[in-house]
Amino acid sequence: MPKKPTILSRKLVCRSRLFAVEAMEIQFSNGELRSYERLKRGDSTGGAVMIVPLLDDDTVLLIREYSAGVDRYELGLPKGKIDAGEAALAAANRELKEEVGYGAKILHPLTSLTLAPSYLEHSIDVVIASDLYPEKLEGDEPEELEVVPWSLSNISGLLATGECSEARSIAALYMTVDYLKGNH
Amino acid sequence: MPKKPTILSRKLVCRSRLFAVEAMEIQFSNGELRSYERLKRGDSTGGAVMIVPLLDDDTVLLIREYSAGVDRYELGLPKGKIDAGEAALAAANRELKEEVGYGAKILHPLTSLTLAPSYLEHSIDVVIASDLYPEKLEGDEPEELEVVPWSLSNISGLLATGECSEARSIAALYMTVDYLKGNH
Repeated sequence: MPKKPTILSRKLVCRSRLFAVEAMEIQFSNGELRSYERLKRGDSTGGAVMIVPLLDDDTVLLIREYSAGVDRYELGLPKGKIDAGEAALAAANRELKEEVGYGAKILHPLTSLTLAPSYLEHSIDVVIASDLYPEKLEGDEPEELEVVPWSLSNISGLLATGECSEARSIAALYMTVDYLKGNH
Repeated sequence: MPKKPTILSRKLVCRSRLFAVEAMEIQFSNGELRSYERLKRGDSTGGAVMIVPLLDDDTVLLIREYSAGVDRYELGLPKGKIDAGEAALAAANRELKEEVGYGAKILHPLTSLTLAPSYLEHSIDVVIASDLYPEKLEGDEPEELEVVPWSLSNISGLLATGECSEARSIAALYMTVDYLKGNH
């Protein structure tokens, strides 16, 4: 493992409602200097959570949601921000109730995923939700989300639809399959 | 499939060397209005490419690289920006030579992954590189990257190291395993 670089300086170069960009001067252990920029969440409180809701051992509940970043509907796992002071598992269950209309009796923390660690500080906690029961909470969604059950044994079919492009959803689904294999 | 929302307005709210934040007013088909922010790459030219370099059918070459966004070393797939006017496959081979010290006789476009489509416009093209031969190109890396061969049949062992957190690398590795299963 190489010796970690030293951050010589940090400067906030722009900030919006949701985002903050930080410029950093970094010196590597060999003396090389580089300028980097990374993105911080401007409204960051407790991070974010992604839920893998299992209706049974082979059925995951996906949602079809408008994604403003790419301006199209995407089919993927439900997710949301953790409120200030809220525990990650509680946030997972709340988002599940708001977006999918189920609560979970079992919430299992699976992993934490980064998006693009070279320039984003963001990460998301992935939680497997099982032993589900119907419960709907009002969320802040602008429109009703369509819930789409999908077979975990057919991830390649999901990818073939072209509607599921998000690396976090794809990684979480494959990891869930591996997790279930090891535990069933 | 719901009727797509309408983007009523777009406004650049901040820009740095690498990033640009766009604020958007969006109206959903049910009449609901929402304010969104999304991130655009400020220096966007041709996008980005991630390479899955296969030394053989079970061995992938990973790199250990300092990731400024999270300020730690990460073990993952090589990647880089596509230069203006450069084709994605050419960029994949160039980055492979710069970061891993190999060229590829076969370059297969596997998929395109988004990171967080709800607030990032970014996507990355994933390319499987095989039939490798040693060739080193000088890149702009601040330090020599450590190349780490890893068995594709042991992705869970890779995740257990805690050094590979990037959703894009994880999704691309699992998808490569599925691709190889279907084609060998």
